Amino acid sequence: MAQKPSIPKGTRDFSPIEVAKRNYIFNTIRSHFEKFGFQPIETPTFENSETLMGKYGEEGDRLIFKILNSGNFFFNKNKIELPESLDVLQTNSAETISVKELVELNKFTSKISEKALRYDLTVPFARYVVQHQNEIEFPFKRYQIQPVWRADRPQKGRFREFYQCDADVVGSTSLWQEVELVQLYDSVFTDLGLKGVTIKINNRKVLSGIAEVIGASDKLIDFTVALDKLDKIGEDGVKKEMLEKGISEAALQKVQPLFSFTGTIEEKIEKLAQLLASSEEGLKGVAELKFICENVSEIGLQSANLDLDVTLARGLNYYTGAIFEVGAPAGVAMGSIGGGGRYDDLTGIFGLKNMSGVGISFGLDRIYLVIEELGLFPETVTSAPTAMFLNFGETEAKYAMKAVSKLRQEGIKVEMYPDTAKIGKQFQHADKRGIPYAVIVGADEVANQVYNLKNLASGEQQTVSFEELVKLLK
Amino acid sequence: MAQKPSIPKGTRDFSPIEVAKRNYIFNTIRSHFEKFGFQPIETPTFENSETLMGKYGEEGDRLIFKILNSGNFFFNKNKIELPESLDVLQTNSAETISVKELVELNKFTSKISEKALRYDLTVPFARYVVQHQNEIEFPFKRYQIQPVWRADRPQKGRFREFYQCDADVVGSTSLWQEVELVQLYDSVFTDLGLKGVTIKINNRKVLSGIAEVIGASDKLIDFTVALDKLDKIGEDGVKKEMLEKGISEAALQKVQPLFSFTGTIEEKIEKLAQLLASSEEGLKGVAELKFICENVSEIGLQSANLDLDVTLARGLNYYTGAIFEVGAPAGVAMGSIGGGGRYDDLTGIFGLKNMSGVGISFGLDRIYLVIEELGLFPETVTSAPTAMFLNFGETEAKYAMKAVSKLRQEGIKVEMYPDTAKIGKQFQHADKRGIPYAVIVGADEVANQVYNLKNLASGEQQTVSFEELVKLLK
Repeated sequence: MAQKPSIPKGTRDFSPIEVAKRNYIFNTIRSHFEKFGFQPIETPTFENSETLMGKYGEEGDRLIFKILNSGNFFFNKNKIELPESLDVLQTNSAETISVKELVELNKFTSKISEKALRYDLTVPFARYVVQHQNEIEFPFKRYQIQPVWRADRPQKGRFREFYQCDADVVGSTSLWQEVELVQLYDSVFTDLGLKGVTIKINNRKVLSGIAEVIGASDKLIDFTVALDKLDKIGEDGVKKEMLEKGISEAALQKVQPLFSFTGTIEEKIEKLAQLLASSEEGLKGVAELKFICENVSEIGLQSANLDLDVTLARGLNYYTGAIFEVGAPAGVAMGSIGGGGRYDDLTGIFGLKNMSGVGISFGLDRIYLVIEELGLFPETVTSAPTAMFLNFGETEAKYAMKAVSKLRQEGIKVEMYPDTAKIGKQFQHADKRGIPYAVIVGADEVANQVYNLKNLASGEQQTVSFEELVKLLK
Repeated sequence: MAQKPSIPKGTRDFSPIEVAKRNYIFNTIRSHFEKFGFQPIETPTFENSETLMGKYGEEGDRLIFKILNSGNFFFNKNKIELPESLDVLQTNSAETISVKELVELNKFTSKISEKALRYDLTVPFARYVVQHQNEIEFPFKRYQIQPVWRADRPQKGRFREFYQCDADVVGSTSLWQEVELVQLYDSVFTDLGLKGVTIKINNRKVLSGIAEVIGASDKLIDFTVALDKLDKIGEDGVKKEMLEKGISEAALQKVQPLFSFTGTIEEKIEKLAQLLASSEEGLKGVAELKFICENVSEIGLQSANLDLDVTLARGLNYYTGAIFEVGAPAGVAMGSIGGGGRYDDLTGIFGLKNMSGVGISFGLDRIYLVIEELGLFPETVTSAPTAMFLNFGETEAKYAMKAVSKLRQEGIKVEMYPDTAKIGKQFQHADKRGIPYAVIVGADEVANQVYNLKNLASGEQQTVSFEELVKLLK
């Protein structure tokens, strides 16, 4: 009954070396999160469906993995009215789906499924804050490093299971948080050796202000979506798209400065202040940008560059103040490796009003690829033992295992080859595992209570006492 | 549209202190796994249903969480024949279910669901080994620390989502592995401060031998299930159950020594050797026990006790050699906190024959409860910052943030209160967070370029330079 084993598309097995490299990144991020005063929480892999549904838009709902009510739990719901709603499904043979069919499908799904896999870490965090509000001391700085699942079509670099690493502060509107989050990005990427990342910053109020000034407040989304494409389709392309969306020629004239928005951050802020002079909200955004950028500059960054990018609009529906995005160091072709921003009403969906939140996220998979491409993983992330004792037979193995046991108590990673195999095979095993030293203990070594230590790279051998062995392997 | 937030029954949120305590246990286990030469792998949260189904018995199949084919992926399967199979479901109003109904339900389920949540770490590991056999260097010592899910009825201490921590060696029949695994248990529990755990050991071949000797080989399961209850229902109870299961009086006479099986391990092994003198398999089991126990004894354990327990039979269908179980230190009422054993054909279900495996598992949730009950969590697991800077206004905050940033670069966990709130409120925040020091920086401190460090427990205050501050907080 042998099956050819495989895993679902969009998921991954991680080998020892991959786990070690991923943990190196996780541990680095975690240590900086903690140094900045963030505290870890963890939430369940699946939430009640109603906690997640409707929070990510229509597309999001469709991409949420639902869990079937299982075993008896399925059966006890014996009143489900299936045939009527399923007639639609059975006769549908098109790839598209009508609204009526969608409604029927959703009814059906919610009857046989009441739980769903976590889609991101933000909604579960909002749920956590509301549910545990009486135990939490605000402002609450939390971090969370857990996998999420999305039923997206798998592609190169896009998976159905992947980790998110989020740090958020909830319960304070202070802009010092934004300053700190920029420093946190700088701190993590510097420590990872990724020098020269660009932390782009923008502000939702600035984007609203621009739309207001050009009399296109009702077209804010269309406007920002088009502006966001500036580096892809160029000035002419953006203008063409804006005109198509009904933004006037006159309006485009007013925002002409945005199409060649260069200079230092100070100069850009000055330009924005002029452009938005008539918009109260826009000027508020400019003031926020000014506070954040000035303080970041005064405190200083270790290796990252801060840049004001007025075309940055990620998750616009969501963010209400600062918007962040991190680009890989120059020369590495990779999308953003982090992003975040401020959202003024994080927990309102669960009934707790006036809880401002601000947070950032690290894109683990892309960071991994960048570090790999630049060859920046430290050699020490591989966790091979320092030495392997050869196994020459029961008496010698007993002698070896006593040493192995004592070395481990000294904190040294060692092991013994478990079988009395041919010596060549044993050496080969150490070599394939990347173990740098072999300890040879034959009858002579046992008789003399010594150890023959062989450097597998140089071939150099020396006979030593146990005390010397400890010293050499440490 | 506020919803009262909650999580699915049988799942848990973990607060910062709980995550810190759990990570303390995970990290301790992980460090010993690595010291013993085990390497980490990770497998996907969900597997193809056919990888899991049929591997855990009928009960297990029912407890596996299935994932609904989602969105378009559900829809593209437009040929599912639902009504026929679902008539049964719709008309069924009893809590019990007929075989026909079960078949229909399974057919239906497999049509709308092709993926399922990981139920344990062993089957995914077997699948991993077979799938990646050409990349693996055998013997392969792997560890895996990941959550699993079971649709069990939630109870006190039994959850639907919980972590397993497994270490297994595959590809070697050497009994040194068993010796090492006993040492690994000892090493981990000693490091966690859980001194005096009992590592019980038995052997499947000994149990088979006993059944053979008393002429009840066909009743091996009944026999061991009854024997396993010795400490619960006593000698008379066990004998009564055995007689009911058709084991003869004469047979019970032969195994009378098992009912008062005391003495040292050496004595027990001697008794078993006599009892099983006529069973080849039984004597093989005795020889295995002898090798393991003698070597463990000779190498020595740090704080655990090894005990030979002939009534130990956990997972009998599964294990083929050694069987392990760990009991909490005397005086703590808790079931087993770990278990494992050898299984000679780990990967056969996926088509790779002759791969012997042996492994052990740590029961995280129970270990947590034992450590909590004995008050053994180190105070340092809580990850509160060392100091909080008070916030007296923008100028002072800027001065404070510069110091905070530099202290963090020195590896010191500090933060600044983000808002210019009343000082009493700020102190209260530090207190509730368990932060030991406050740094007070008002106009005077800024003017003199100094810092006022206050010990929040003693109330003691001192004015220091930045260099002194670094020294004091380090």
